[in-house]
Amino acid sequence: MSFADIDSVDQYLADLQTRIVTSFAGFESHERFRGKRGGTVATTDTRTQPMVLEGGNTFDKAAVMYTRVRGEHLPTSVSDRRPDIAGAPFEAVSLSLITHPRNPFVPTVHMNLRFFLVATEQPVWHFGGGYDLTPAYPFAADAIHWHRHARAAVEAVYPGSYQALKQACDAYFTIKHRGHTRGVGGIFFDDWTRGGFATCFEFIKSIGERFLPAYLPIVRIRQGTPWHEEHKRFQRLRRGRYAEFNLVLDRGTRYGLESGRRTESVLASLPPQADWAYDWHPSQASHEALLETQYLSPQDWLT
Amino acid sequence: MSFADIDSVDQYLADLQTRIVTSFAGFESHERFRGKRGGTVATTDTRTQPMVLEGGNTFDKAAVMYTRVRGEHLPTSVSDRRPDIAGAPFEAVSLSLITHPRNPFVPTVHMNLRFFLVATEQPVWHFGGGYDLTPAYPFAADAIHWHRHARAAVEAVYPGSYQALKQACDAYFTIKHRGHTRGVGGIFFDDWTRGGFATCFEFIKSIGERFLPAYLPIVRIRQGTPWHEEHKRFQRLRRGRYAEFNLVLDRGTRYGLESGRRTESVLASLPPQADWAYDWHPSQASHEALLETQYLSPQDWLT
Repeated sequence: MSFADIDSVDQYLADLQTRIVTSFAGFESHERFRGKRGGTVATTDTRTQPMVLEGGNTFDKAAVMYTRVRGEHLPTSVSDRRPDIAGAPFEAVSLSLITHPRNPFVPTVHMNLRFFLVATEQPVWHFGGGYDLTPAYPFAADAIHWHRHARAAVEAVYPGSYQALKQACDAYFTIKHRGHTRGVGGIFFDDWTRGGFATCFEFIKSIGERFLPAYLPIVRIRQGTPWHEEHKRFQRLRRGRYAEFNLVLDRGTRYGLESGRRTESVLASLPPQADWAYDWHPSQASHEALLETQYLSPQDWLT
Repeated sequence: MSFADIDSVDQYLADLQTRIVTSFAGFESHERFRGKRGGTVATTDTRTQPMVLEGGNTFDKAAVMYTRVRGEHLPTSVSDRRPDIAGAPFEAVSLSLITHPRNPFVPTVHMNLRFFLVATEQPVWHFGGGYDLTPAYPFAADAIHWHRHARAAVEAVYPGSYQALKQACDAYFTIKHRGHTRGVGGIFFDDWTRGGFATCFEFIKSIGERFLPAYLPIVRIRQGTPWHEEHKRFQRLRRGRYAEFNLVLDRGTRYGLESGRRTESVLASLPPQADWAYDWHPSQASHEALLETQYLSPQDWLT
């Protein structure tokens, strides 16, 4: 593999998209994923393959978005930090996914894996991404299972690094104005070059390969839980918090909207329904109350 | 009245809040407005009187928020523009309201009236605010009625100024990433000192007094329109756009969240329910399609 080989990353992420879509579709009684009308969207500088499922039996919404972009000039968000390569052409490839499950006891999941390359004489590149889990009705067993896989994914390539990436995830996915994290976290990294391209790519694959084993067992265990309208209502209120994070704070979303990317792709992460109720609080010691008091502040799940 | 008399503005806005709350409550079969538990919220530097109605017959939500703040030091958002008064103590008073009507044929309305004062030896002050109308199902007659009142409110104090304030409203309430305005507009102004304090205060009162005559006739005409779940669904999709504007773009909301104001008050404008559907488009020539094609780009309603 050559140095900073974007085509190999592209191929891996595109294949991973297919495998995840196939796997998610297996939870539905009939295929509901659809791409943009006519399939792949291609312009001279962008090739996207958005795959979105709505109104399924298991998933109210699942969006698994693949994008490859070629740009003539670096976005200022990058060149501000790297004036030495300002104005250079760049390429980027990313896989971004989210689920909004139908059963309120099944947690929402998010994963993003991306690679950015400026193919100047001395190539400049980095990886970024991570994954995190957001339950409405939390279970310690799920958070532990999830973090065991996150730790394994990191430690397989960078022994001793899980804790730092776990803390970066808690820090990034904090809804500051609410005073709590978005969910029970996972791992997060950006501007990632540690060990060189081949090692970083192994790391991306280590995360990618552990995504389905980390998430699907939780879906299988929780999807049979009986639920009523009151549980769905609470899930919609939590989806309101999710929308707040994505629209107010998420850097990828804000950058996507400001830079004029395809809005429907940038906002594919938004929940199908979100509720807001003024000054609403769950009753004390309810399962709903446990979420904020016991799950939405950073803690060690594996000790 | 003395120069830059904040207590008079305070008194006017607090009284206007009471009148609007009483008027809105008259549309409901029983009183549903509630303030923060125990009524007025007062800390050493802030007095707020949030009045929020939820689940009414006419309004799914109506929030009419009064706030008076005293701060020891100017927020950087102001002192960045006015370094000469950086660090000075300040006072601010505001009335902010929004409705999310139950009937999808009744438009959402928003009004904000605010006064900001730095009581230095040479007092520095300005007014700001405006009002704008956001239908899901638009009617030209409603937009014309609304803008007639907006024009009258402006022209009574500043002859010939409606057009500029109307354009400022269209510019401010544009959802850039969607390529359309939030609604059919109204008027908008900021850093407003034209003609001195007494004239500006007359202007605020001119807007305030015309708010109910501008909005209530529209509520009365439209609230009897029969509606079905498909209309409610479209209303919820439009509320998604409203939430996008408020969370991504609205300066007041973003400033409120970043500066650590009471989050429930800052986000009281959010809809009770919002929907997002991936790449959804209304069928051609439907009433739903008319909204974006004929109403959500700036136009002259009064010529």
